[in-house]
Amino acid sequence: MNNSIEKTPNYNDIFETYNRIKSFIHKTPVLSSKSINKITGAEIYFKCENFQKTGAFKFRGATNAVLQLTENQKKNGVATHSSGNHAAALALAAKIAGVKAYVVMPENAPLIKKKAVKYYGAEITFCEPTIEARESTLEKITEKTGAEFIHPYNNFNVICGQATSAFELLNDYKILDIISAPVGGGGLLSGTAISAKSLRSDIQVIAAEPKNADDAFKSFNAGYIIPSNNPKTIADGLLTSLGSLTFKIISENVDNILTVSEDSIIEAMRLIWERMKIIVEPSSAVPLAAILENKNIFKNKRVGIIISGGNVDLNNLPF
Amino acid sequence: MNNSIEKTPNYNDIFETYNRIKSFIHKTPVLSSKSINKITGAEIYFKCENFQKTGAFKFRGATNAVLQLTENQKKNGVATHSSGNHAAALALAAKIAGVKAYVVMPENAPLIKKKAVKYYGAEITFCEPTIEARESTLEKITEKTGAEFIHPYNNFNVICGQATSAFELLNDYKILDIISAPVGGGGLLSGTAISAKSLRSDIQVIAAEPKNADDAFKSFNAGYIIPSNNPKTIADGLLTSLGSLTFKIISENVDNILTVSEDSIIEAMRLIWERMKIIVEPSSAVPLAAILENKNIFKNKRVGIIISGGNVDLNNLPF
Repeated sequence: MNNSIEKTPNYNDIFETYNRIKSFIHKTPVLSSKSINKITGAEIYFKCENFQKTGAFKFRGATNAVLQLTENQKKNGVATHSSGNHAAALALAAKIAGVKAYVVMPENAPLIKKKAVKYYGAEITFCEPTIEARESTLEKITEKTGAEFIHPYNNFNVICGQATSAFELLNDYKILDIISAPVGGGGLLSGTAISAKSLRSDIQVIAAEPKNADDAFKSFNAGYIIPSNNPKTIADGLLTSLGSLTFKIISENVDNILTVSEDSIIEAMRLIWERMKIIVEPSSAVPLAAILENKNIFKNKRVGIIISGGNVDLNNLPF
Repeated sequence: MNNSIEKTPNYNDIFETYNRIKSFIHKTPVLSSKSINKITGAEIYFKCENFQKTGAFKFRGATNAVLQLTENQKKNGVATHSSGNHAAALALAAKIAGVKAYVVMPENAPLIKKKAVKYYGAEITFCEPTIEARESTLEKITEKTGAEFIHPYNNFNVICGQATSAFELLNDYKILDIISAPVGGGGLLSGTAISAKSLRSDIQVIAAEPKNADDAFKSFNAGYIIPSNNPKTIADGLLTSLGSLTFKIISENVDNILTVSEDSIIEAMRLIWERMKIIVEPSSAVPLAAILENKNIFKNKRVGIIISGGNVDLNNLPF
């Protein structure tokens, strides 16, 4: 990996990114629930990226990456492998920019996600559901087409884009004591942490991760990357492991990572659905699960939570 | 029934009601979905009463009724029979006003609704799940306590309260061609129709009702009340039949009532959940179902829909 990839975003990068992408994204609403505040003892502000285009924060990073392509790169298009929200986000961001998108998806990806990527006009290539098959299939496509690979999280421009959700939240709610985001590959958490620490030096950044996919927790505490080994969690957006860039940013800017049980994730997801009447995917419920499991840490604190997305298969709910 | 009950609300009544209740209620947001607009060919503005306190528009009418009690009536409290959203709404409205609430509920009411009514501090009396048992149990309670019976829909003050949702919507969105609401007992539809016709003489009011509980459709077309006989529909908020006052208002102010199939209701509910990421109960999806079944009527029109509520049993979803 070359040095330019490992450059860490700063406040100016995020500020410029926000101005670059703001006319393409939704400024998502911030919601609160009296009854969830009562249950947790905290004062929680939910930044609702489930209402973002394509139903997840991923559209912010994908849009930023596509908008920074050179004219030559635009001619060749963009490519990625993903079974989830990044694929749909990149497909739509590319479509809006008039750029071709190639997406490698595992054959067993949920039908609803296959449909979404197709709906946004990407060219899909299916492969076996292994990381090796995904990477080798993608490599063939980028070699053949010259398309630019947009990594879902270990990418400077993608992280700058994901940072804009916390940037909006913190500019509108200056009173937060803590900001929390879920961590999978670490793109959202990295962006959130940089926005938080550059806008507010005194704010605490507390990440939340499923116990069953706790590579970030382990890596953060060990001081080197320890990838997950075949993790299984209902939070299907958090199965990926940290990359070199996200690990570096998280190590330097995050105060703590809390891990949570599968039962807590489902309980938190159900609370949000029932009390707030909004649809969030299991990954989005992980920070609230961390609050439910650690009420002492969050008691009487004003906590911002990035709700990462709302793409769930209604035929396969945990309740 | 005495004359004062049959008085019909006018613009001034609704204006005064809004000023009376506005500090107690949420001004609910108005949401749109590009993809639902594309599917229907209409431009739809959803007024989201699922985000109202107690999760439904019912809180508006209950609040207005409680705020208009005399000091003597306040001492004796309020009472109603309901298995649904009106019970929770009246319980919370009474609690806020420091008034005692008595609620008669059928034994087989959903556990989540029993819990909600209890949570808001009402005294619950359970009875057999028949209208006769509900009415006789309620009568015993009002005789014993002197509590004021707040009818869920055939009540002037309740209708004025329910009217404030359309009042907010039409004041903020002056460009609507059509406004639509679901119809059960007719409280929401009556209030919506009076707000619409008094604010905008040229707007069309089109109600939507399940085919399987089509008493309003039949009554509207016959010119006299034809109650439902043991109706069965997934739209559990729309099982009740019109009352004398709601029938009168609807006859005079509604342009059309469309009936829809159970399949369309489920399809519309799913569309709202998947595309808008908000939780609505089946009754709320009935107007969108009517648009899906009658695209020609709504093509290129700007349509306001009152989303009535978001209280669903997550353990018993239709998908």
